[in-house]
Amino acid sequence: MVEAYVLLMTAAGTARPVLASLRELDAVTRASIIAGEFDIIAEVEADSNQELLSLVTEQIQSDENVGRTRTCIVLE
Amino acid sequence: MVEAYVLLMTAAGTARPVLASLRELDAVTRASIIAGEFDIIAEVEADSNQELLSLVTEQIQSDENVGRTRTCIVLE
Amino acid sequence: MVEAYVLLMTAAGTARPVLASLRELDAVTRASIIAGEFDIIAEVEADSNQELLSLVTEQIQSDENVGRTRTCIVLE
Amino acid sequence: MVEAYVLLMTAAGTARPVLASLRELDAVTRASIIAGEFDIIAEVEADSNQELLSLVTEQIQSDENVGRTRTCIVLE
Amino acid sequence: MVEAYVLLMTAAGTARPVLASLRELDAVTRASIIAGEFDIIAEVEADSNQELLSLVTEQIQSDENVGRTRTCIVLE
Amino acid sequence: MVEAYVLLMTAAGTARPVLASLRELDAVTRASIIAGEFDIIAEVEADSNQELLSLVTEQIQSDENVGRTRTCIVLE
Amino acid sequence: MVEAYVLLMTAAGTARPVLASLRELDAVTRASIIAGEFDIIAEVEADSNQELLSLVTEQIQSDENVGRTRTCIVLE
Amino acid sequence: MVEAYVLLMTAAGTARPVLASLRELDAVTRASIIAGEFDIIAEVEADSNQELLSLVTEQIQSDENVGRTRTCIVLE
Repeated sequence: MVEAYVLLMTAAGTARPVLASLRELDAVTRASIIAGEFDIIAEVEADSNQELLSLVTEQIQSDENVGRTRTCIVLE
Repeated sequence: MVEAYVLLMTAAGTARPVLASLRELDAVTRASIIAGEFDIIAEVEADSNQELLSLVTEQIQSDENVGRTRTCIVLE
Repeated sequence: MVEAYVLLMTAAGTARPVLASLRELDAVTRASIIAGEFDIIAEVEADSNQELLSLVTEQIQSDENVGRTRTCIVLE
Repeated sequence: MVEAYVLLMTAAGTARPVLASLRELDAVTRASIIAGEFDIIAEVEADSNQELLSLVTEQIQSDENVGRTRTCIVLE
Repeated sequence: MVEAYVLLMTAAGTARPVLASLRELDAVTRASIIAGEFDIIAEVEADSNQELLSLVTEQIQSDENVGRTRTCIVLE
Repeated sequence: MVEAYVLLMTAAGTARPVLASLRELDAVTRASIIAGEFDIIAEVEADSNQELLSLVTEQIQSDENVGRTRTCIVLE
Repeated sequence: MVEAYVLLMTAAGTARPVLASLRELDAVTRASIIAGEFDIIAEVEADSNQELLSLVTEQIQSDENVGRTRTCIVLE
Repeated sequence: MVEAYVLLMTAAGTARPVLASLRELDAVTRASIIAGEFDIIAEVEADSNQELLSLVTEQIQSDENVGRTRTCIVLE
């Protein structure tokens, strides 16, 4: 099992709706709006690095209000 | 009361009009165009972190010429 | 109650010992070593922004192996 | 007259003492500890770009707890 | 002969198709999707700095799903 | 007289045309395409900080292929 | 098997000796000095994320001339 | 002939002495102190990428007050 923190930049004014849709994804165990370089931080789980890639590129990034994302894989 | 500095990137060529509209917001106590990574820095006040979020996402980011914003909350 | 994610850079080769000492702090609810720009991400709780500042500067940064830290306050 | 915002990174655990010494400098009109990439933001005034350089390199950076600084000159 | 690593940001959800088209370019010796600030890293070869510029601007950046690119020239 | 280096990010595939139009501006004394975080670096001169702002926002950023710009004012 | 690119910052003037010692590590399949934000890029292989962490923290970062490192795990 | 811009971060309070020593190097055609992320920008010339590497690592970085450097090679 692979755990990761995914940091997201959202289109101006859309942090709240993006947060709501993220929280509906099974693979997202927790998500919050934060102050700083990124707008949202989500904690996710996947079975493998490739499944993590699919989660990010096909589910999280499919929301048109999601811009840049940065994936930080948990090593320990 | 929460104070914060909000750093803004503006669309090319729009720094001056964005500055003007920012200065009309009650919650903005001061705003300037600066040289460097960001185009504008605004000093803002809000009653709570959540109100600060609304100020940034619903008022400041509602200007179509406002791109990336970064919120630095004053701790002391 | 204020929640925040604190991102840490650690001195070369010290990620594991820093992780261990972080996990002993009451205010740290969770901490992991991650791949990417930062070495460790910690989830923390404090009663106020000022207490959060003290937690970061007096407890977390007191570890000599802790270098740069970046605090991302949870807004929602 | 030149106005600028100077962003500072401070050595671990020294944000409060650095803030205190900054506030004693005449050229510093305001200074706060902030959450985010930098630790402190100071608003400064100088008679010229060169005097601004001397303020930053000879006064602000003379404090051994001051690390990286970034000067954002106010353009308007 | 000039070697370089080209780091690419891709439009949301397009990492896999961009990777496929990159791998068809003769000048690209290797390419992978990575986790972190950039989405893809490609190893390229060119006869000169100018040919490298043409490769990046006219071939790699011609894919509409390719956003920011960063070229790191191998020095040794 | 104010001197500055202006770093520019250009739309994908447009570095060469942007370079050509920059070199036609009187205030631009020199401009080159570079490898790295930015695509072009231009050396500019203006009579004041405000005129520098107008040069950047009204002339340089008026080119639709110019994205982010970062102005580094020469202090000495 | 986990593949990754590890970007390294080296102490001033030490890029060449660090490159030499990196190339002696079995887990390093390739390493080069590059121009840009980082000084060296190394391609590495490990059996698991945890072994990758040990490689970075206990072998690569044990060289006193190695400063910041950034690990980009290959996802595909 | 290879041209490049080398961006330097200097130790706190040492921008002026570093500028002076840089200007004495034959390979440095121009150097200035700037406001922003870096402290100094130098324009340099070398016969090859490898000679550029030697200039940066053995001459420029030999000054103990020189910290991080970033080399942007001119492509056109």
